Amino acid sequence: MELTVLGCNSALPTSQRNPSAQILTVSGRTFLIDCGEGTQFQIRKMHINFMRIDYIFISHTHGDHVFGLIGLLSTMSLLNRTTPLTIFCNSKLEELLRPQLTYFIDNLSFKLNFHHLRYDKPEVILNIKGVKVSSVPLRHRLPTCGFVFCEQEKEPNIKKQAIYKYGLTIADIVSIKGGRPYYDVDGTEVPREELVMSSQPVKSYAYISDTAFLPEIVAHIGGVSLLYHEATFAEDNAMLAKKTLHSTAIQAATIARLAGAGKLLIGHYSSRYKETDILEQEAQSVFPDTTAVFDGFKIMF
Amino acid sequence: MELTVLGCNSALPTSQRNPSAQILTVSGRTFLIDCGEGTQFQIRKMHINFMRIDYIFISHTHGDHVFGLIGLLSTMSLLNRTTPLTIFCNSKLEELLRPQLTYFIDNLSFKLNFHHLRYDKPEVILNIKGVKVSSVPLRHRLPTCGFVFCEQEKEPNIKKQAIYKYGLTIADIVSIKGGRPYYDVDGTEVPREELVMSSQPVKSYAYISDTAFLPEIVAHIGGVSLLYHEATFAEDNAMLAKKTLHSTAIQAATIARLAGAGKLLIGHYSSRYKETDILEQEAQSVFPDTTAVFDGFKIMF
Repeated sequence: MELTVLGCNSALPTSQRNPSAQILTVSGRTFLIDCGEGTQFQIRKMHINFMRIDYIFISHTHGDHVFGLIGLLSTMSLLNRTTPLTIFCNSKLEELLRPQLTYFIDNLSFKLNFHHLRYDKPEVILNIKGVKVSSVPLRHRLPTCGFVFCEQEKEPNIKKQAIYKYGLTIADIVSIKGGRPYYDVDGTEVPREELVMSSQPVKSYAYISDTAFLPEIVAHIGGVSLLYHEATFAEDNAMLAKKTLHSTAIQAATIARLAGAGKLLIGHYSSRYKETDILEQEAQSVFPDTTAVFDGFKIMF
Repeated sequence: MELTVLGCNSALPTSQRNPSAQILTVSGRTFLIDCGEGTQFQIRKMHINFMRIDYIFISHTHGDHVFGLIGLLSTMSLLNRTTPLTIFCNSKLEELLRPQLTYFIDNLSFKLNFHHLRYDKPEVILNIKGVKVSSVPLRHRLPTCGFVFCEQEKEPNIKKQAIYKYGLTIADIVSIKGGRPYYDVDGTEVPREELVMSSQPVKSYAYISDTAFLPEIVAHIGGVSLLYHEATFAEDNAMLAKKTLHSTAIQAATIARLAGAGKLLIGHYSSRYKETDILEQEAQSVFPDTTAVFDGFKIMF
């Protein structure tokens, strides 16, 4: 998996930080998560081919997470995209976008699907070759979902020695890969570890923004390889975080610790923090492997 | 007058060029002309105080001229702007913006007025202290207006020597500034040039985008100090310019020559032109004092 942060600020953009948007690539697929104003420019600057984005995930319909959609869709159509595109979002967003799509785009060049999210319980919203995506309801000022992206269990590779030793046929290999036992010419079951290589552990990514501190989500992101959790405020504004249903850096780190995350990224900073060191330090006091992201931040995991 | 170009590209943005937007300051007023996606970020990067923008002029409702409006208005409200704001635009834009304003902005903090443009003939759309703004209908694929900004004739300054020589009172000075004759103690009219300094010529700026070649506009922009005219294409794509109702660099320069403009700026480039030298050179072959603008271009005139 590879994650690229296109924008990491909260509602009021600064000259250094764009509003929320991220690109995640999994098993050769390119996903866009949130789409604040200017996302299409950020994608270009990062040299990402945005025509490869087939799925867009919108956590909630605050402007700083959606104002870039109409421009991006418009550009895709001007470039004569033909591959269908699916947006996972609140039904209200479709209602607001439809008149704009009709007016601003002459004959949308591709099929645009809207998948309306539910906010009462988690659900698997996408299950395609190589990756499964689930939604996780969050607690914010309007219906909001986080998203968990899981690589699918890969088929194990067969050991070359076993192929020669037992004279495995294609049918045998398919059967073993499918998890079935294999018996040698004497009818003895061959131990599985002699036949297949240990497969790489599957990776996962959880995007949790925007939300109040919500330990209930831990059940749905337990053991995640990489967690992005919003950290709009430092402790100096803990009351404001509570009031606006946002999280502090320490709360983000607490979720990461409870979930046993492999690594934590924080973002969605209030523009009052010119530098993000204080947020990173506070989070690290609870969860040492924390990084405060910036526009253009990239990580492979 | 001072002009700052925030974006100079046409519909398909590049990594170097943002969509259309300009800031014009006249007599201490700050005007925004067109508002493509990302305009609020460009304004911040240029260190312009966007809370001082009281009037926005939208030439037409193609996305690359308007997609930045909702984000800008949203940010102004988040920053608790209270000064009223007026947008000059097509009535359709208000119709498209209203549901977004209602949904995305909790209690817009300022009064937002829409002035609907007419497209059948030029009209004075704003006449305030120091500046008068007129619309000029253009020819494009949907209703489009250019804008002409004229400084108002300034009151002349009184010569210090005259004040001492004739013992002018405040009342005398107001009277002379108002254009009335002044008589000395003998009842002889004092020649005006002895009383007032020659006033600076009034400056004007015309913004002409987007449009097919339209010599009819020359009557409305004659003698303009600075002309910005779209030049989407070079001669290599003259047929495409004709088909899409855009102008070539040579056509832009022809308008500047016919209008007797003081200086020509060209912009709104097709993204096929990575460099704009060819457009500038073609325009200069007809109108030597031409500059191809770029994002961040600034000129005082």
